[in-house]
Amino acid sequence: MTTPTSLLCPRCGERSSPNLPRNLCGCGSPLLAEYDLASLRQTWRKEDLAGREASMWRYWELLPVEDRANLVTLGEGWTPILPLRHLGAETGLPELLLKDEGLSPTATFKARGAAAGVSRAKELGIRQVAMPTAGNAGGAWAAYCARAGLDLHVVMPVDTPEMNKLEAQAYGAHVYLVRGLISDAGRIVTRAMAEHGWFDASTLKEPYRIEGKKTMGYEIAEQLGWELPQAILYPAGGGVGLIGMWKAFDELEALGWIGRRRPKLIAVQAEGCAPLVRAFEDGREESSFWEDAETIASGLRVPKALGDFLVLRAIRETEGYAIAVSDRAILEASGLLARTEGLFVCPEGAATVAALPELLRRGVLRSQDRALLLNTGSGLKYPDTVQARELPVLEPGDRIGSPSQADG
Amino acid sequence: MTTPTSLLCPRCGERSSPNLPRNLCGCGSPLLAEYDLASLRQTWRKEDLAGREASMWRYWELLPVEDRANLVTLGEGWTPILPLRHLGAETGLPELLLKDEGLSPTATFKARGAAAGVSRAKELGIRQVAMPTAGNAGGAWAAYCARAGLDLHVVMPVDTPEMNKLEAQAYGAHVYLVRGLISDAGRIVTRAMAEHGWFDASTLKEPYRIEGKKTMGYEIAEQLGWELPQAILYPAGGGVGLIGMWKAFDELEALGWIGRRRPKLIAVQAEGCAPLVRAFEDGREESSFWEDAETIASGLRVPKALGDFLVLRAIRETEGYAIAVSDRAILEASGLLARTEGLFVCPEGAATVAALPELLRRGVLRSQDRALLLNTGSGLKYPDTVQARELPVLEPGDRIGSPSQADG
Repeated sequence: MTTPTSLLCPRCGERSSPNLPRNLCGCGSPLLAEYDLASLRQTWRKEDLAGREASMWRYWELLPVEDRANLVTLGEGWTPILPLRHLGAETGLPELLLKDEGLSPTATFKARGAAAGVSRAKELGIRQVAMPTAGNAGGAWAAYCARAGLDLHVVMPVDTPEMNKLEAQAYGAHVYLVRGLISDAGRIVTRAMAEHGWFDASTLKEPYRIEGKKTMGYEIAEQLGWELPQAILYPAGGGVGLIGMWKAFDELEALGWIGRRRPKLIAVQAEGCAPLVRAFEDGREESSFWEDAETIASGLRVPKALGDFLVLRAIRETEGYAIAVSDRAILEASGLLARTEGLFVCPEGAATVAALPELLRRGVLRSQDRALLLNTGSGLKYPDTVQARELPVLEPGDRIGSPSQADG
Repeated sequence: MTTPTSLLCPRCGERSSPNLPRNLCGCGSPLLAEYDLASLRQTWRKEDLAGREASMWRYWELLPVEDRANLVTLGEGWTPILPLRHLGAETGLPELLLKDEGLSPTATFKARGAAAGVSRAKELGIRQVAMPTAGNAGGAWAAYCARAGLDLHVVMPVDTPEMNKLEAQAYGAHVYLVRGLISDAGRIVTRAMAEHGWFDASTLKEPYRIEGKKTMGYEIAEQLGWELPQAILYPAGGGVGLIGMWKAFDELEALGWIGRRRPKLIAVQAEGCAPLVRAFEDGREESSFWEDAETIASGLRVPKALGDFLVLRAIRETEGYAIAVSDRAILEASGLLARTEGLFVCPEGAATVAALPELLRRGVLRSQDRALLLNTGSGLKYPDTVQARELPVLEPGDRIGSPSQADG
C-alpha cells in the first residue's frame, strides 16, 4: 500500500497515474514519483527505522513497490560511510567522508536504480525491457532482470569497459554494441520501442530508477544521525543520483525528519565531457550536447543528460557547484585513495577526490566542512586504471626482502 | 575490554597469552582465541544486537580488538542472505539460500579475516607483515594494511588471477610472484620472517584471521532468526571459514543463544585439488599434500591446509560431508546462477552450486532441507569465467530486435 500517489512532471506540473507503465511526460520531461508525505508524517517516525533490514528497502514507505511479492532484491543499499582520515588530513579536510557504493550488487550504485525499476516493472506486468547504457547500468539491469525473469535488450558503446560487456552477457541479457556514444545507443533503443513494444528503461525515461537512487540521500541522513554534511561531491554522468538525493532531502523535510539546511550538492565531471559544468558556469538552465565526449571515467561520458535541468536546479538551490577534472588527475587520485585509505574505487568515484584541492582553493569547500564523497562503484570493474608494474618473479626457495626484489 | 582471555591450542591443549604477537603453538598447531563466555552469558542477550551496526563488528564482544581506536574497517560483514527460488526449484531444493560475500570490501570474504587480523596486529604494535596468498587474501590484506598504515609483503603464485595482482599493487603492497604453488610462496615467507623479523600473517599461522571469518556463522544464525539451516556448503581451500563457523556455533551455544543442533558442514573442493575430500573418504584425521594441484577456482588450489585436521573434525562432528566437483561443472554452475538468479559469483562460490545434484543423489541433502551456499566472492575478480560471445556491432541508426542481431 505504499505505491506513489502520482507521477509529477517537474517541468509543466502535470500529474498522472503511477499505475500504468509510463515514460516521459507529454512535454518531454522526466516524471517524478510523489507520495502522501502529509499522512506519512502523522504515522511514521524516524525511530521506527531502528532494527529494520540493512538495505535500501528499509525505506519501504517511500519506495514504489506496492506488494512485497514483487520485490526484486540482491541486498542493495545501506552501504558504509567511511572516514578518510589520512587523505582528509593531507587534503586539509579533517572530516572527509566517503560513502562506498562499491559494496553493492554488481559493484556499483546502479544496483539501487535497477532494484527499484525492475521491481516496479515486474509489478506493472512488463516483460520485455530495453535500454542504452554507458556500462554499469546495463550490468545492474541485466542482473535484476535475470532475477525477475524479464527479458533485457541492452545497447552500449563499442568501447564500453570489457567488464560491463562480460557481466551483461553473464546475466543472459541481449547485448548490442554501437559505434558511437550512449546517445547513439539511446536512439537505437527508442526506435526498437516503437517497433517491438518493449519498455524503455533509459535513465529518467522510466520514473522509478531515481526512486532507488534517492535512497542514498536517506542513508546519508540516517547514517550520520540526521545531521547532513556541509557538502556532497557526486560524479555526474546522467546525474540521477544527485537529483535523487535532492528529492530525498525534500521528502525527509516534509516528514519533519530534517530541517531546511541542505548540503551543497557538487557535481564533478571529466574535462573531456563536462556539459553540466559548462552550463553551470554559463548560468544556463540546461546543458548543450558535448561534442567528442571522451574520458576514462566511462560513466561520466554522457554528452547531454535528460535530467540536466534538474541537476542544475538542485545545484543552484543548494548553493552547490560544478567542476571538471582531468583524466590524469582522476588516475592519480585513484592511486592515492587506494594507498592511503585501502579503497580501490572506480574512476568516477576517484574524480570526486581529484576535485578536492581546487574546490578548497576556490572557497567552495572550507577546511572545517564535513564533505562526503560519493563513490559510485568498485575499481574492480576498471582494472586498466591500476598503474601496474612488472612484478619480480621468484623460484621456489628464493629469498625476499632486499629492496631490489620488492615492488609496490 | 573484550580481548580474548587466552589462545588455546586445539591439538595439545596448551594455553597462552593473547597479548603478544603469536603464530603457531610449539606443537605446530594453529591457535584459537578464547573468550570469557560464561561471564558474557550473564550480561549479554541476543536481543541486544538489534540496532547495532550492519557490519561484523556488531559482535564486538567476541572479536579480538580491545580498543576501538585500533579498529581498521572498510564496512565488512553483514552480507545479505538471498533465497535462490528459481535455482532451488530446478535443483529440487525449494529452500535454497545463498550468503553473498561478494558484497564485501575487496569483493571477497577475505575482508573479514583481514579486518580482524590487521586490527589486532595494529593493536599489538606490529608494523611489517608478510604472507603467501592464492590471491584474494593478498588483496584484502593489502587494502586493510594500507588503511592501517602497515607495510605488507605478499607472495603469490605466478598464475594467480590478474585481478589479484593488480589490486595488491593498487593498495601499495610489496608484491612478489613465485613459479610454484601457495605452498612454495609460504616457504619463501617463512624464511623472510626469520631473516627480517616481519610478522607472519599466513592463514592460521596468525590466530585472528579466523576470528573475522567466524562472524559468518554468527550472521547466518542471527539473519535466519537463530534457526540454523540443515546444511552449509562451503568452498574449502584453507578451510578457515568452515572452522570459523564451527567455532562460532559453539560460542553461540555457550552463550545460550542457539541449541545443540548444528548444520551439516559440507566442504566443496575442485577435482583438481581435493585433499580434504580424499582424507574424508579415507577416514583420516589429516590430509596429504595434493600433487600437481590445478583448478580455475584459484582459491581452492591449496594442496595441504594447515588447519586440515580442524576442517575434518568440524565436518565429522556435524555429520557433514566433503565432495569434489569438476572445473567444467563449476563454469556451468556459474552461468546458471547468473542467468537464473542474477548472481555473478566467483568460481569457488559456483562450486557449491555444482555440488548440489550429487549431494542430493547421495542423500547428503534431502529436498526438504534448507541448505545455505556460502559464496565467498564476486565473479568480477574472475572475468575469464564468463563464456563471452562475439557481440553484434551496430552503426548509429541501425535497428535491433531481429533474432539474428541479438546475443545473450
